Amino acid sequence: LSKDIVSDCIKAPASVLRCKSSVALGGDEQQKEKQAKDAKGIVSYWGLEPTRVSKEDGAPWKWTCFRPWEAYSADLSIDLKKHHEPMNLLDKIAYWTVKALRWPADLFFQRRYGCRAMMLETVAAVPGMVGGMLLHCKSLRRFEHSGGWIKALLEEAENERMHLMTFMEVSDSRWYERALVFAVQGVFFNAYFLGYIVSPKFAHRVVGYLEEEAIHSYTEFLKELDNGNIENVPAPPIAIDYWRLPPNSTLRDVVLAVRADEAHHRDVNHFASDIHYQGRQLKEAPAPLGYH
Amino acid sequence: LSKDIVSDCIKAPASVLRCKSSVALGGDEQQKEKQAKDAKGIVSYWGLEPTRVSKEDGAPWKWTCFRPWEAYSADLSIDLKKHHEPMNLLDKIAYWTVKALRWPADLFFQRRYGCRAMMLETVAAVPGMVGGMLLHCKSLRRFEHSGGWIKALLEEAENERMHLMTFMEVSDSRWYERALVFAVQGVFFNAYFLGYIVSPKFAHRVVGYLEEEAIHSYTEFLKELDNGNIENVPAPPIAIDYWRLPPNSTLRDVVLAVRADEAHHRDVNHFASDIHYQGRQLKEAPAPLGYH
Ligand SMILES: [Fe+2]
Ligand SMILES: [Fe+2]
Ligand SMILES: [Fe+2]
Ligand SMILES: [Fe+2]
Repeated sequence: LSKDIVSDCIKAPASVLRCKSSVALGGDEQQKEKQAKDAKGIVSYWGLEPTRVSKEDGAPWKWTCFRPWEAYSADLSIDLKKHHEPMNLLDKIAYWTVKALRWPADLFFQRRYGCRAMMLETVAAVPGMVGGMLLHCKSLRRFEHSGGWIKALLEEAENERMHLMTFMEVSDSRWYERALVFAVQGVFFNAYFLGYIVSPKFAHRVVGYLEEEAIHSYTEFLKELDNGNIENVPAPPIAIDYWRLPPNSTLRDVVLAVRADEAHHRDVNHFASDIHYQGRQLKEAPAPLGYH
Repeated sequence: LSKDIVSDCIKAPASVLRCKSSVALGGDEQQKEKQAKDAKGIVSYWGLEPTRVSKEDGAPWKWTCFRPWEAYSADLSIDLKKHHEPMNLLDKIAYWTVKALRWPADLFFQRRYGCRAMMLETVAAVPGMVGGMLLHCKSLRRFEHSGGWIKALLEEAENERMHLMTFMEVSDSRWYERALVFAVQGVFFNAYFLGYIVSPKFAHRVVGYLEEEAIHSYTEFLKELDNGNIENVPAPPIAIDYWRLPPNSTLRDVVLAVRADEAHHRDVNHFASDIHYQGRQLKEAPAPLGYH
């Protein structure tokens, strides 16, 4: 075990963390107490005791979903205005599908942007996972490389899930909203799955346009924060660790980082669609590196 | 773009690579020429030109499926003998299911262990992907953390896929074998998907036992290498880079590294099953760190 941990620590800049391969508890804060109680009950035959990871200041690392060396700084310089002009029928269908989906969302959420963000992130985290999984299975079936696209799409999915984990901390969801998420996921997962099998270029284009809308709605979110309609609360700790934000950051800084992520997703997905439009396969063009 | 690459490079030990954010071609060697020809055709509007990554010696990094900082050294000290004694009916069903699946495999492949390894890795890379995807969707639906298990299972799937990419370099597949892979994946993906939804503890137990069989069959592979029935060819370059093997490594070293990986998967999956057997959810026990 310790050997593996050492090789993991090597990945991190020495100043960010210290790893200890001693047997200790990890996990998210709210579960810590329960875990402490149950710790002895966990089988240790397999030698997989959780590892303690510490921050630079010696404080324990609270998150199991990402480690210090996986945190990153959002690139806020990204161009928010880029847009793919629909070129042909398929593009136009993708564009108007997304525009049509905005109506019910606008109606349902109105100006509750925190809630809207949280709910929409549960949907946004689906396409990357579906695309990554399908490319993974294709790579296995055909005995061929993927050009890094499996990882790129799975990382996008994980990044969207982290958006959800962040907005969860600042918004509440009601039971009927959770029920809605349940139903929407069932429909959207299957629709995107089929769509990706039939036409990956259409599927990636739809995501590209969805991300353009996401940028727009986060921009509205920022306006509401600036004019005081939404309170600019302190950034939740998970967001500070995930985007390496300064300790006194606020919700506004979080929304800026999230919006920059969405711009990256927009670029990656329009790019993927463009590759398909050129009659090429994704594996022929190496996936962008270090995009989340 | 360059900002992101810098933050990626930080993850790597400084001695392993140099990153250049210049516009250049990457991709796997066999595709390089084709790419060079088509490079100008790739849209660059999205600013996602492939990044050049170099090895320590300045040679270009050839792989897009993993980067220097994602390579690792296999822990060859892992106990190959560990076994989960079937404790109850469900365990026994899992155990005998796997044992029953060995018969057709033994019959089909006999002593062609290279071919056997390649074919079975196309199956082995499925459970981690399915489990990771289902946990991802569950995390989204329930607005809850996953304890790091999504990443752990997806990393297992990617590691199995890398086994396939490695054995592809030393074995040939015939058309009817590829057709078989196609059919088996269709059946196994859906069976495991349903199995994981109905009983994750059963699903992880089955994988645990599959990995025990994998260890056995790689041990047989090693015997055939040692008694000269299979030629101990030089390790393919992708394996040398992936497991950080010395440059003059052979197929035997590769099989040793792969077998150690399988032992890790065995431990992780039996562990996951044990957690479920205790009536707990995976997210309550942080996923092991740095296992592949
Ligand atoms: Fe998002
Ligand atoms: Fe997004
Ligand atoms: Fe394997
Ligand atoms: Fe395995």
